[in-house]
Amino acid sequence: MPSPIDTSPEVFRQLAEEALRIIEDFYAQLPHAPVMPVTSAQAVRDLLAEPLPEQPAAASEVLAAVRDIVYPLSRHNGHPRFFGYVASPGTAAAAIGDLLASALNANVTSWRSAPAAAEMEHMVIGWLKQITGFAPEGTGLLVSGGSMANFSALAAARTKADPHAGRRGTGHAPDLRIYASTEVHFSIVKGARLLGIGSDNVVLVPTDAAFRMDVAELERRIESDRAAGLRPMCIVANAGAVNTGAFDPLPEIAAIAERHRLWLHVDGAYGGFSALAPSAKPLFTGIDRADSLSLDPHKWLYSSVGCGCLLYREAQPAIATFSHDADYTRPVGLSNDEAFAFWDLGPELSRPFRALPLWLQLKLYGAANLADAVARNIACAQYFADLVTEAPDFELLAPVGLSIFNFRYAPPHYAGDLDPLNEQILLALQRGGSSYLSNTRIHGKFALRGCVLNYRTTEADMRRLLEDLRDAARYCFLRAG
Amino acid sequence: MPSPIDTSPEVFRQLAEEALRIIEDFYAQLPHAPVMPVTSAQAVRDLLAEPLPEQPAAASEVLAAVRDIVYPLSRHNGHPRFFGYVASPGTAAAAIGDLLASALNANVTSWRSAPAAAEMEHMVIGWLKQITGFAPEGTGLLVSGGSMANFSALAAARTKADPHAGRRGTGHAPDLRIYASTEVHFSIVKGARLLGIGSDNVVLVPTDAAFRMDVAELERRIESDRAAGLRPMCIVANAGAVNTGAFDPLPEIAAIAERHRLWLHVDGAYGGFSALAPSAKPLFTGIDRADSLSLDPHKWLYSSVGCGCLLYREAQPAIATFSHDADYTRPVGLSNDEAFAFWDLGPELSRPFRALPLWLQLKLYGAANLADAVARNIACAQYFADLVTEAPDFELLAPVGLSIFNFRYAPPHYAGDLDPLNEQILLALQRGGSSYLSNTRIHGKFALRGCVLNYRTTEADMRRLLEDLRDAARYCFLRAG
Repeated sequence: MPSPIDTSPEVFRQLAEEALRIIEDFYAQLPHAPVMPVTSAQAVRDLLAEPLPEQPAAASEVLAAVRDIVYPLSRHNGHPRFFGYVASPGTAAAAIGDLLASALNANVTSWRSAPAAAEMEHMVIGWLKQITGFAPEGTGLLVSGGSMANFSALAAARTKADPHAGRRGTGHAPDLRIYASTEVHFSIVKGARLLGIGSDNVVLVPTDAAFRMDVAELERRIESDRAAGLRPMCIVANAGAVNTGAFDPLPEIAAIAERHRLWLHVDGAYGGFSALAPSAKPLFTGIDRADSLSLDPHKWLYSSVGCGCLLYREAQPAIATFSHDADYTRPVGLSNDEAFAFWDLGPELSRPFRALPLWLQLKLYGAANLADAVARNIACAQYFADLVTEAPDFELLAPVGLSIFNFRYAPPHYAGDLDPLNEQILLALQRGGSSYLSNTRIHGKFALRGCVLNYRTTEADMRRLLEDLRDAARYCFLRAG
Repeated sequence: MPSPIDTSPEVFRQLAEEALRIIEDFYAQLPHAPVMPVTSAQAVRDLLAEPLPEQPAAASEVLAAVRDIVYPLSRHNGHPRFFGYVASPGTAAAAIGDLLASALNANVTSWRSAPAAAEMEHMVIGWLKQITGFAPEGTGLLVSGGSMANFSALAAARTKADPHAGRRGTGHAPDLRIYASTEVHFSIVKGARLLGIGSDNVVLVPTDAAFRMDVAELERRIESDRAAGLRPMCIVANAGAVNTGAFDPLPEIAAIAERHRLWLHVDGAYGGFSALAPSAKPLFTGIDRADSLSLDPHKWLYSSVGCGCLLYREAQPAIATFSHDADYTRPVGLSNDEAFAFWDLGPELSRPFRALPLWLQLKLYGAANLADAVARNIACAQYFADLVTEAPDFELLAPVGLSIFNFRYAPPHYAGDLDPLNEQILLALQRGGSSYLSNTRIHGKFALRGCVLNYRTTEADMRRLLEDLRDAARYCFLRAG
């Protein structure tokens, strides 16, 4: 008698066929459905709520709930006019890759636990080094996302600056200091908090008009900290800041890091794969001098969520940070490459087979098509900036960095406060369902913020976005009487 | 012209059909194929190696490589005689759930980014609280695995003990101290290293003969540390230690934590779901007094890798630890439940839709069947202990804790050293492919270690394991001449 959990081939086929139909319908209606449902937490909860299921439900009933509740009551990051935050559309190849990874259920802790998965991950890491121009001798691993990549890079940098921190804690010497621009992603500050370095020790260096780090000021801050007896440890450069897409000047920053013997971490979680686009590639000059680089294949390689990446130039500081030996994990009868463990390079022990969807996607689409899609995203953002610049009723608030644009509605002769007006327009746009932007502040002003990160997005979508915003504005004025 | 990355319905169907055939064949041959391939890193690498693919490959060619290289050259955690480490077989339901999650590609950062996913996660967290008996008023989130859950729990505990650590770093007050038994999982020590607390500040309390923490000694250590001016911060109790399955006495430890106002974290990454089994449920008395509990649905709920869980009794210390506000994530026009963000409770920002496979699985199998499978796993381990105890040529090295057994081959009148003999037998067993054990040390002795964590495993498999070991021993003796 097989266990009821050991799904029969018939039930598996039924589940799979119904799931495929749901996905096919989803893909077919994606460009036409609302980007975001109009709903509330309570409404969604009421539809899903039930006590812990004691007995099995029928496959068709369970999948009907996915089709009728879960999918429609989700925000659709794959919609061609979803421009919010930095969210990938996902790909069909990655979805099939995740299915194959999950059915195999390899646990990619180490080579011995997943030989093919470990070797595939090594190979894919090599490809990502090549795409970005990272130091060829470097190593790396896939992690759950950019926050974990940034955290792990700071942890390794801490070990380099204070080899005793792991054993004794960070409390036995003057404060370690991290330098980043005011545009740094919050995961860097969060990493400093978690690592016991403290957010007070993240020095936020001002930026120029294009939101790039002021390198002269960077060097002054390092020198004054050192003079004050503090311990400079690491510089974090943005390879595409999340707010504006700004790209810090890597060659100058690398020179400062080398002069002061500081770890150089580059945060390319959003912008790292813009290296695929010829227009952005020159920005990566100097990336081979970085000690670590965060990347998010689940952002601008369009892959499914849960696939970040961290590259290290040298493995040793990471190993000194993360490696741990225990009786129950000690390899027996293995050496060299077969004794390799990913837990020596990052915080996780159990790890899903993240390389499989990524590999499948790179194989099925090819780097040339991915590069073309990235270049088109950048072109769409630039095209939109031109539309805004030419429009009498909109104004650009920041230069377009990579594929991120910041702007606002500013009709001529409007006497009111533009901040609440744009906030209302944003909400009306999001509720309308045709286009989706998120928000930020630029020089203190409320900004409509968009990021083109979808291979489905075209110039027609950029024109439509502007029309949708004008519709939203008309609605707001009408409602205000 | 759609992008080449926007997979056509025809290609998606072809990919999906071929993937399903691979998976169906895999499930069908799983009990008969070798648990672990006999291969080398170089051999696998040679089969996979290729430069970054510039142009698309045919779907059939790519999936043939999955079928012929990736799947066969993997260790098969779903095989009924895979007993190594603590590895889940995965389920067909979770695989379909991962497909559906990946195709939708919701990024579960917050409610506004994934309404259905956020509400489903809240509901599933409620179910996991109910299963384990955790405080009903508690909160929690799904994380990538047990290491991240343990790390996050220690981070929240640190905030409770030193509210300024996040801002100023851990270096401005006497050392914080963590107490755990000598059987503690290495992720706790790693967490202390990463958090800047330091591994020197993890106090390893001795255990009794059943590898449970010596609570009298625990209290003595806390008192002597406090007298020495150190700052006791947290006690970590094992709800199923990974080495032996030992379960620390929760009521006594909870009383000590309360008396000394310390955070009580329970590591149930391996053993947490043994609460489903009536025989183990009494061990969970007192779990509602814990401040946090780590669980791994990707272990003993049989789910696919990448699904850990952390429960908190109070949300506030977690929020004070992880919450971060940035211009580009600030909610507009949302409040209360709709403003909820998972990044306030853990280290990640982007998060995959981990609740979907777990929910699908709980719905399709029902808690009663999962409970039955867990109880059978425990019974199999106990049955195996009886077989070993009765066998003249084997000896048990530790009491069976939950579903973990430690033993060794010890033929009568054998004059040699049993450690290298058992190491050789283990390697021969692993290479043989019929059964798979891992290794540890028990009281300094090399131990064959097994963990029953698979709903496919039966008593017949336990008998076969013993026979496979005898075959391996014969092979070793033969080879030694």
